[in-house]
Amino acid sequence: VNPTHDRSDGHNAAGPGYAGNARVPAAEPPIAVRWADDGTGVDIIDQTLLPEFERRVSLRNADDVVEAIRSLRVRGAPAIGIAAAMGLAVEMGRHVADRPATFTERLRRTTALLRAARPTATNLAWAVTRTAGVVSAVPDQAEAVRAMHEEATRILLEDRQMCRMIGENGLLLMPDNASLLTHCNAGALATGGIGTALAPVYLAAAAGRSVHVYASETRPLLQGSRLTAWELERAGIDVTLIADSVAAVLMAQGRIDLVIVGADRIAANGDVANKIGTYGLAVLASHHGVPFYVAAPTSTIDRATATGADIPIEVRDADEVRRGFGRLTAPANVAVFTPAFDVTPSALVTAIVTDRGILRPPYGPAIAALASVV
Amino acid sequence: VNPTHDRSDGHNAAGPGYAGNARVPAAEPPIAVRWADDGTGVDIIDQTLLPEFERRVSLRNADDVVEAIRSLRVRGAPAIGIAAAMGLAVEMGRHVADRPATFTERLRRTTALLRAARPTATNLAWAVTRTAGVVSAVPDQAEAVRAMHEEATRILLEDRQMCRMIGENGLLLMPDNASLLTHCNAGALATGGIGTALAPVYLAAAAGRSVHVYASETRPLLQGSRLTAWELERAGIDVTLIADSVAAVLMAQGRIDLVIVGADRIAANGDVANKIGTYGLAVLASHHGVPFYVAAPTSTIDRATATGADIPIEVRDADEVRRGFGRLTAPANVAVFTPAFDVTPSALVTAIVTDRGILRPPYGPAIAALASVV
Repeated sequence: VNPTHDRSDGHNAAGPGYAGNARVPAAEPPIAVRWADDGTGVDIIDQTLLPEFERRVSLRNADDVVEAIRSLRVRGAPAIGIAAAMGLAVEMGRHVADRPATFTERLRRTTALLRAARPTATNLAWAVTRTAGVVSAVPDQAEAVRAMHEEATRILLEDRQMCRMIGENGLLLMPDNASLLTHCNAGALATGGIGTALAPVYLAAAAGRSVHVYASETRPLLQGSRLTAWELERAGIDVTLIADSVAAVLMAQGRIDLVIVGADRIAANGDVANKIGTYGLAVLASHHGVPFYVAAPTSTIDRATATGADIPIEVRDADEVRRGFGRLTAPANVAVFTPAFDVTPSALVTAIVTDRGILRPPYGPAIAALASVV
Repeated sequence: VNPTHDRSDGHNAAGPGYAGNARVPAAEPPIAVRWADDGTGVDIIDQTLLPEFERRVSLRNADDVVEAIRSLRVRGAPAIGIAAAMGLAVEMGRHVADRPATFTERLRRTTALLRAARPTATNLAWAVTRTAGVVSAVPDQAEAVRAMHEEATRILLEDRQMCRMIGENGLLLMPDNASLLTHCNAGALATGGIGTALAPVYLAAAAGRSVHVYASETRPLLQGSRLTAWELERAGIDVTLIADSVAAVLMAQGRIDLVIVGADRIAANGDVANKIGTYGLAVLASHHGVPFYVAAPTSTIDRATATGADIPIEVRDADEVRRGFGRLTAPANVAVFTPAFDVTPSALVTAIVTDRGILRPPYGPAIAALASVV
């Protein structure tokens, strides 16, 4: 099988369309995930090497994709969903000539493998299930593989469009000369497009509006300093890096107009799972009267999860804290508590910015209403 | 001049006296600062090398001491006060044969140099001024140098005693099976004795009481992971390391009975300057109904500073965040906001634990009353 890969169809740096603007950034946001040129691989920026090296790697099968997701070469809830969807299509393309029973069993196992690569983000399971779901409607295996490639491409293109819509909705919440704080990376590197939390920032800059971003470095893996600061600086947007513990001081000094973060999963009641540290920022924002916004595509809302208490929280390796920089920064065997995510109760969330509009409390009815119009 | 250095007089590891206890820790707390064996130098553990290497270095003049304070080889408000007091005596000992005018001028310049090594901690200026102050009462330069050595030794021994008293007072605030959170390092490595915030922990362990410490790693320089986790583990005390951003989750889960931190300066109204991140923890503690304690010797209270707004906050080099571990973890030239300290308003402080008792709000009168009994 050799699916058609039109370079205008999600495989290319279509970008957010800055051309012609007077304050055009120095460069466009990076492309976190796309098809490899020949269509038989998933091309990603290896985010573990940033900011020292900007290197693209091509993932050639599902095991490669799982390894890349687990090791955070590709990360961010939307981006790992896209990569996993593409990875499923790539893997099944390698086995298009298998006997039907073998093909079906491999599809089942690969779907399960990809879904389990990380437990917290809901987009991952959603994207893989959606991609696998197209198989039953087609007559043969070659068609099935082609349909999965097309579905993965649709997920990528929809994500790009969702990012833009989130950006346009989020822009409505940003004052002139906005100074905002974001945590972790919910930017272009986390999605197929211009990001979720950073989408309004890119659009504000593209519209010639002044905007300043404080990026918290986000220990232990420093996605704020390694990724957010990198992609914003690369795009010519004002960014100031802080250690995570500096956020409270900035708020007390009145230097933060709003906090905006992404989400890995949003429960039916509006509780938000996101990078560890998000909950603390929400409490600090509440204390200082700073609006706290969550930006995410509607695919991040998991109506099957009633509240944040039902969201599984991944715990990562202690050495990410003890030896995070290739150097021992703690006693070698000291106990470490290393949740990768935390849950912010919906009561601390001022609004949830989605591609389909801005949700306000009470979130239960707002999310239910969103579902009813799908 | 060759001052007498009685090894029982502050130059030795007298330790906190754990001997004979059933739950004796594996080792005693480390000695952060003491006289070099020959009395002509200041012997410190180079804390920039911990936890990889435990190496003692001998500082031989005031410039050495200033460099060691600036580069954080010796740190912690009490310990830098002691090191600077000793450094003044050592420096003047090298110039005991100078002409009187030269000696006096060198004393003035060295005092100013040492006082200016770091701007925020009040103990530094206090200890240097106190040590220089003994000179006017003695008839000749040799006597002056000897008197300064003795005064520096007194400061060390008093600090050791203050730590013990803070520990005993703090112990009154600790429930059985206490699980507490501390930030940065206010332990033995920060003082001449068993620490300030950690003093009650050492005494609880010595008394056979169960105690568990969560140590926040304290970006950017990781005093929590490199120093607090190291000294507690070395002493056989249960410690769990967390990234700074994990504290809020622990509090929400009810796993923190109390927060206890040190202080670099306490204003006359009870506002507390301490390591960056302290203020955020105080807000989080308040939100979760967790008591927030500050432990410090009375020498940390600066009655000449009316409120926290009057405390100068040192700003450190951006590369401590961008290249903190010898590796580039952010864009090389990205802007960074790097305050070394923050100010916690007294309204968020449940109690201040001093060597002379536990202060409770309102702190203005409590601090004034403390002064009146000196």
